[in-house]
Amino acid sequence: MTPNESTNITWHEGSVTRADRQRLLNQKGVTIWFTGLSASGKSTIACLLEKMLIERGKLAYRLDGDNVRHGLNKNLGFSAEDRSENIRRIGEVAKLFTDAGVIVLASFVSPYKKDRDTVRASLKPGEFIEVYVEVSIEEAAKRDPKGLYKKALAGELKNFTGVDDPYEAPTKPEILIATERVTPQEATAQILQYLQHGAYLTA
Amino acid sequence: MTPNESTNITWHEGSVTRADRQRLLNQKGVTIWFTGLSASGKSTIACLLEKMLIERGKLAYRLDGDNVRHGLNKNLGFSAEDRSENIRRIGEVAKLFTDAGVIVLASFVSPYKKDRDTVRASLKPGEFIEVYVEVSIEEAAKRDPKGLYKKALAGELKNFTGVDDPYEAPTKPEILIATERVTPQEATAQILQYLQHGAYLTA
Repeated sequence: MTPNESTNITWHEGSVTRADRQRLLNQKGVTIWFTGLSASGKSTIACLLEKMLIERGKLAYRLDGDNVRHGLNKNLGFSAEDRSENIRRIGEVAKLFTDAGVIVLASFVSPYKKDRDTVRASLKPGEFIEVYVEVSIEEAAKRDPKGLYKKALAGELKNFTGVDDPYEAPTKPEILIATERVTPQEATAQILQYLQHGAYLTA
Repeated sequence: MTPNESTNITWHEGSVTRADRQRLLNQKGVTIWFTGLSASGKSTIACLLEKMLIERGKLAYRLDGDNVRHGLNKNLGFSAEDRSENIRRIGEVAKLFTDAGVIVLASFVSPYKKDRDTVRASLKPGEFIEVYVEVSIEEAAKRDPKGLYKKALAGELKNFTGVDDPYEAPTKPEILIATERVTPQEATAQILQYLQHGAYLTA
């Protein structure tokens, strides 16, 4: 290897571009960001959408509490500062996956508008699709599949979004899912249509 | 959406698996970790390998200083603690990409054995391929494409690996690239052969 060959710039010029990866996958990299209260149905819809995309031969990958909180963000707590850093890191990872050409399905309560907007700003226009998975507190507390609202209302769980910590709803989400009126299947079809119309499912 | 339908467990059962993604891509997710001194040729080889993989229809993605230090790890410095956290986060991101089915090409000096071994331990056997891009300090300082060794030797750059900060060479890397004896093309062919023999390039 001569010094000239080992100069990064030389090789980078001929290196693989995002367009190459998108052509290989026949899709466009994008971050679909699901935000909403706990028990709103974010994960349910993200899982169903992931399934439909994979069945169509599209590479989708879910980022959620399960694979992020115990890994990348295991050294973060639930203070306001740590919550912001949590979303910031997830946003940076979503950006890398988007650059790789993957359809990212990020599913997090992400209660603060500022944090979501920071992720949006770090991506290019059209690369961030905010999906507001809407549910009333009353309905969410009624569903309560993990018993978290019960604990929060009993004071056993502190800083729980929607109970004693605010949820700042998106004012202009790309997609609004009214979960008290549509089924997860209908919601998924709605997002899939958005992706098709936006030409995300071709290179 | 009924409360039952919104219970995550129900949907997760039927959700997409890593095997589904690997079938879609016809490859196996894996992290190829390039370690070596600055100017050893890590990026050169990673770029060339990425190109050859994409040409073969395989989805590879490079993680390096360019897309990590200014994003995910922009709030980290160069103290021993921050260097470890730097590698830890990169390892967690590589793990997510590996789970997504992608062939990750991670190219970082990563001087400490302990940090590299932590990444290795977080992945399953066979999912972490350590590539030691070997070069002598003398040769690296001679190449010095970015003029960093010159600055470090002049004392203008502190804690520079190989000059005033240690580099702990891998003792049992999966692949050893002796850059003073092989060209980047030969090195890339060597890694590609390893991947083919290990059945990484099929699902």
